[in-house]
Amino acid sequence: YRLVLLPGDGIGPEVVQAGRRLIEAVAGALGHEVIFEEHAIGGAAIEAFGEPLPEGTLKAAREADAVLLGAVGGPKWDRLGGDRRPEAGLLGIRKALGVYANLRPVRAYTPLLGASPLRREKVEGVDLLIVRELTGGLYFGPKRREPIDGGTRVVDELVYTTAEIERIVRLGFDAARKAGKALTSVDKANVLESSRHWREVVERVATDYPDVAFGHMLVDNCAMQLVRSPNQFGVIVTENMFGDILSDEAAVLTGSIGMLPSASLGDGPGLYEPVHGSAPDIAGQGLANPLGTMLSVGLMYRFSLNEPRADQAIVRAVDRVLEEGYRTADLAGPGDRISRTEEITEAVLERLE
Amino acid sequence: YRLVLLPGDGIGPEVVQAGRRLIEAVAGALGHEVIFEEHAIGGAAIEAFGEPLPEGTLKAAREADAVLLGAVGGPKWDRLGGDRRPEAGLLGIRKALGVYANLRPVRAYTPLLGASPLRREKVEGVDLLIVRELTGGLYFGPKRREPIDGGTRVVDELVYTTAEIERIVRLGFDAARKAGKALTSVDKANVLESSRHWREVVERVATDYPDVAFGHMLVDNCAMQLVRSPNQFGVIVTENMFGDILSDEAAVLTGSIGMLPSASLGDGPGLYEPVHGSAPDIAGQGLANPLGTMLSVGLMYRFSLNEPRADQAIVRAVDRVLEEGYRTADLAGPGDRISRTEEITEAVLERLE
Ligand SMILES: CC(C)[C@H](C(=O)O)[C@@H](O)C(=O)O
Ligand SMILES: CC(C)[C@H](C(=O)O)[C@@H](O)C(=O)O
Repeated sequence: YRLVLLPGDGIGPEVVQAGRRLIEAVAGALGHEVIFEEHAIGGAAIEAFGEPLPEGTLKAAREADAVLLGAVGGPKWDRLGGDRRPEAGLLGIRKALGVYANLRPVRAYTPLLGASPLRREKVEGVDLLIVRELTGGLYFGPKRREPIDGGTRVVDELVYTTAEIERIVRLGFDAARKAGKALTSVDKANVLESSRHWREVVERVATDYPDVAFGHMLVDNCAMQLVRSPNQFGVIVTENMFGDILSDEAAVLTGSIGMLPSASLGDGPGLYEPVHGSAPDIAGQGLANPLGTMLSVGLMYRFSLNEPRADQAIVRAVDRVLEEGYRTADLAGPGDRISRTEEITEAVLERLE
Repeated sequence: YRLVLLPGDGIGPEVVQAGRRLIEAVAGALGHEVIFEEHAIGGAAIEAFGEPLPEGTLKAAREADAVLLGAVGGPKWDRLGGDRRPEAGLLGIRKALGVYANLRPVRAYTPLLGASPLRREKVEGVDLLIVRELTGGLYFGPKRREPIDGGTRVVDELVYTTAEIERIVRLGFDAARKAGKALTSVDKANVLESSRHWREVVERVATDYPDVAFGHMLVDNCAMQLVRSPNQFGVIVTENMFGDILSDEAAVLTGSIGMLPSASLGDGPGLYEPVHGSAPDIAGQGLANPLGTMLSVGLMYRFSLNEPRADQAIVRAVDRVLEEGYRTADLAGPGDRISRTEEITEAVLERLE
């Protein structure tokens, strides 16, 4: 396999290093040969090449079997214009790879229930999947500034086509069918025209999935329901910006955003990244939680490398490590011993079956 | 005073009736004469006049000292086109009255801490204010559908002018200064051009408020932080859609969205409404929580009728009712006796000082 690693900024390099070690361990066990290529993205690429998504990075990613990304961004580059920021590299690679479907599973780990801000009985058993549209909407619509009397008029366009909506909605229904769970489509149909069209498409596609229970929910209500009773959700499908907000909100329910993996899928190579950001405040100190990235490697084995058993083994190893009481700083409660990034990475590797 | 009541749909009429009785009680105590005018809005107006915001309703609202609104919307009208839905009445009156600033205070009531999905220690002491821009952004930008090959291209424009941003940001800083709290400006500046301009305006306005601590936060992070540690927030200022999502999310922290009041302010009459929706499933059964509306009446006395002491008296009466154990269905835990709308309204009125 050819795998491209894009460490990026902040804690990105540390967690990608943990991901790499995990891949080496799994590949060794399965007798696969893996060729790694490491490339720059985000702020790191701005420093080295003057742009957040160099041509070489993009070319390598396009030719890879899968891409593992750390995180991008940091205060150092916050003053740059929109298309020259580290985030433009992330958005650019998502768009270039055409990974329109961002899967963010949110699972309550029993040993971490105490780390959740919610009451134990509210989060116990949570096992939901957010399917976020990733290459459309406000993120990629035209943007403009127009000078007007006494200031500026600034516009971001939220754009979707029927085809863009249909493919992500189908993927949502497929995921719900596979999981044997209900699908909740989240929109703001009482205000947005794009949401009204989204709802029409969902209604039409639903006729192909008579075996899948589904419902519509307004985004403001969903933001409330995710806190009120997250257990009501199976699979959530929604557009890009709503998915960004709701998945970060859902992430914290289960203790720490540091635990959350993601898979971004399209017709070419898949892109795998932890849900957390670059956390510049703790970068380089060995304090990062590598588990979100390691679980993302699991998703890579499941979706891109056709080895769902490797994913299962990784999930089990992470479970055991947590059960045995290993905690990175973000997971630790008062009195817990804190494991550094390397220590918990090692612990997962040792427990891989 | 001339007050316009707009009961609207679902539980709207029940909660507005509670608000009216409260106003009568307060006006009686203060020796004010109040003239009530009741008008149709939303689905009720569609039924009676064929449109969600009849001219007569708008005219009366414009000439009033303040407007009290219940809620609009319901499944009956969900199939109507965008500008003929009940919600178009609500958006229309907000725009017509020019109430660009929507204030949503979120307070943890000690007797209700057990009703919050969050651990007691997380919500205890929460007392934050969300200042939401209410007449711009995605809600009011141009919307269009264009036929394209094999489907439709649908667009909602997120539009802001410098002046629109500046007035709401100033109001946010003023509110933070008055409360002696920090201001958090929420945006998505790593993706949206409108957010980048928002941030520029905040930076500029901030120089006029050297005594107010302020910071920027990305909306996805804010959705997470509101659950992780809501106590970190004093005043939050944000654009329309983000404010819609974050305020509903914040509402549930303190037990029930049924408790939350709002004030929408501009240069003319203020518009007061509970944050909850029309809840068609429980409409007409006396199960609605009137406290969000009664607290909105308190805000009306504070901001439109120049009687902050009336607001204080209402807040104290609501506190006492909760301390004495009165609970509407949405607030009740296992074993709690449930009060009907009228009973708890009566209980508040009896405790008004
Ligand atoms: C870094 C940022 C552009 C990105 C997004 O908004 O998509 C991040 O928040 C995410 O969710 O992956
Ligand atoms: C009913 C709807 C249009 C409205 C909004 O989105 O503003 C509501 O959710 C609110 O927050 O007042």
